[in-house]
Amino acid sequence: MQPISKARLEQFSDGVFAIAITLLALEIKVPHLENTDLKNSLHELLPLIPNIATFILSFLGIAIFWVNHHQLTRNISTVSRRVVWGNMLFLLFVTLIPFATSAMAENYGNILAVMTYSLILLGSSSSFSILRYFVEKHEGNTKVKILRSLVGPMVYSLAFLSAFYSLGTTYALLIIPPLFYFLPRK
Amino acid sequence: MQPISKARLEQFSDGVFAIAITLLALEIKVPHLENTDLKNSLHELLPLIPNIATFILSFLGIAIFWVNHHQLTRNISTVSRRVVWGNMLFLLFVTLIPFATSAMAENYGNILAVMTYSLILLGSSSSFSILRYFVEKHEGNTKVKILRSLVGPMVYSLAFLSAFYSLGTTYALLIIPPLFYFLPRK
Amino acid sequence: MQPISKARLEQFSDGVFAIAITLLALEIKVPHLENTDLKNSLHELLPLIPNIATFILSFLGIAIFWVNHHQLTRNISTVSRRVVWGNMLFLLFVTLIPFATSAMAENYGNILAVMTYSLILLGSSSSFSILRYFVEKHEGNTKVKILRSLVGPMVYSLAFLSAFYSLGTTYALLIIPPLFYFLPRK
Amino acid sequence: MQPISKARLEQFSDGVFAIAITLLALEIKVPHLENTDLKNSLHELLPLIPNIATFILSFLGIAIFWVNHHQLTRNISTVSRRVVWGNMLFLLFVTLIPFATSAMAENYGNILAVMTYSLILLGSSSSFSILRYFVEKHEGNTKVKILRSLVGPMVYSLAFLSAFYSLGTTYALLIIPPLFYFLPRK
Repeated sequence: MQPISKARLEQFSDGVFAIAITLLALEIKVPHLENTDLKNSLHELLPLIPNIATFILSFLGIAIFWVNHHQLTRNISTVSRRVVWGNMLFLLFVTLIPFATSAMAENYGNILAVMTYSLILLGSSSSFSILRYFVEKHEGNTKVKILRSLVGPMVYSLAFLSAFYSLGTTYALLIIPPLFYFLPRK
Repeated sequence: MQPISKARLEQFSDGVFAIAITLLALEIKVPHLENTDLKNSLHELLPLIPNIATFILSFLGIAIFWVNHHQLTRNISTVSRRVVWGNMLFLLFVTLIPFATSAMAENYGNILAVMTYSLILLGSSSSFSILRYFVEKHEGNTKVKILRSLVGPMVYSLAFLSAFYSLGTTYALLIIPPLFYFLPRK
Repeated sequence: MQPISKARLEQFSDGVFAIAITLLALEIKVPHLENTDLKNSLHELLPLIPNIATFILSFLGIAIFWVNHHQLTRNISTVSRRVVWGNMLFLLFVTLIPFATSAMAENYGNILAVMTYSLILLGSSSSFSILRYFVEKHEGNTKVKILRSLVGPMVYSLAFLSAFYSLGTTYALLIIPPLFYFLPRK
Repeated sequence: MQPISKARLEQFSDGVFAIAITLLALEIKVPHLENTDLKNSLHELLPLIPNIATFILSFLGIAIFWVNHHQLTRNISTVSRRVVWGNMLFLLFVTLIPFATSAMAENYGNILAVMTYSLILLGSSSSFSILRYFVEKHEGNTKVKILRSLVGPMVYSLAFLSAFYSLGTTYALLIIPPLFYFLPRK
């Protein structure tokens, strides 16, 4: 296989990121409001709250993936076959995030929906760690920072498992990776 | 954090703008026309009029944001972490514009739909002002033109508040920011 | 207004073109097939035929617009304000083509749907001619080839008007602009 | 016709690829889960299995097309009119893949849906071979590797024909082209 140009890999990936992040908002179903009176209409909006919370969580997730993806590819010189397909596996999970968001928002409080969401984010973060490993190895970088890269996969695994016992814990765990990202770093 | 390249930030943002602006038209629901006779069919098209008016309003809004975004980023050299996340917050509101458009078009005359629309455009224009502030500060520009930048947020706040008293006023106020943009400037 | 960079105008326009052309296929509704037996299923597919014909017509239309748009912008040096907004008006009509396609396909034989389709393609081709005029003038090109540029708008106007008398004529006229494009040129 | 720039042809094509591959996941319908109890919910998920299998198959298909498309265009210098329109024909079939995926997933076990899917992938791979032929000829490459290029079209033709006798064979044949791609090459 001839090497893939970095510019086009980024261009294609940016397209997928941009579409996935924009489709998130499309999944917030527009309610058909029956009342023209403010007080009664507000009641009809209540079911939108879990939708909006999930929307923001997924938006943050994809945004962080985009920033990390950018920082990963920015210093590489060539793209190997393994990097191309590691990237494709990662994008496969990214394209599933709008589906997972919609499943969780429309089935608020359903254990299976929460597990699906956790699983798809586990897939995204794990495949990103694999991609990072491929890139670092291809670049001849021997001391790969494994630990930080494993925070996401570990927390999402815990979120998945905790769903068997307490959905509240799962929801709390799902918020940790974005928060962790914004922690000040030394 | 390593700096983000300007080219890729623009590429990703352009993707989001292009998708959001194209999805606007997708939200105009295609009516199933029962009559094959022109006169009667025209009656079935009447409910499309608020849809089309809102579509044009939102199209103009996103188009103006795109032009302003372009002019903001064109002269910057590097992208700081704050600029990246200011940009993400702005894009979050941009991706919500098709949702707001659809909500307003499908619930014509509903106070809550109009308030949602005003609120999302208030969010877009405010976050764009914040982004502009971050960019100018990062570039070391001391005399930031605050005033012009606040027209949008102020008018959309008024639109939101006026909905409590008169929806007609709100509709009128929502048209002002695009008109203001096309005023000749000295 | 500071000048807009040509590269980003093309990038944004390409995004809109790519999304509009891909959404065309999304508008072909997937039928829920009741029969597992080939002969009976074929009958259920019959309503898809006008859908597919309209899909191909619109695909060709957008593809030709893309090629023409590319050839228009490829030789320009700077982008004026009028060119930016002429381009936006053109893109507004391009984003409406999937809607028009869907309206015509779902309401096969309905005069209003056919007129809407003709009108939106009249808008696209006219606004493209206006854009071409702005570009040529900005580039200081005095002898603009008006005639070729008016074929589209003229034929789509005829298509619109002919709908009052005979839908068959309208369908035939709608096929002419793409055919004309592929005629060998001296 | 003036020559088309390679960069913009790639940019437009990447947009179409990115949207088509992201829409695949959108076609997985989100089920409305009735049970909040894990065991019963799992039963409701069973109909999702053919959806997910088809999703992965189509994702792989588009990903392989993207890699091949990239390798085809990377070494070309200029783009002829025939290459532009060969590329458009290829993209037409790519935009139909989400439709075909949805048709096959929603009508699991229906002969017509399977034939439609085979036909659209036959169209994609054949038009890609035609595009490759145009590119190689334009570049003056005389010894075009025809054989490898014909594997896809041949297998998809067999898949289409086998549907008359045994759907199981068709499903098996549809998996061959992606597997073949990942075979180690000498």
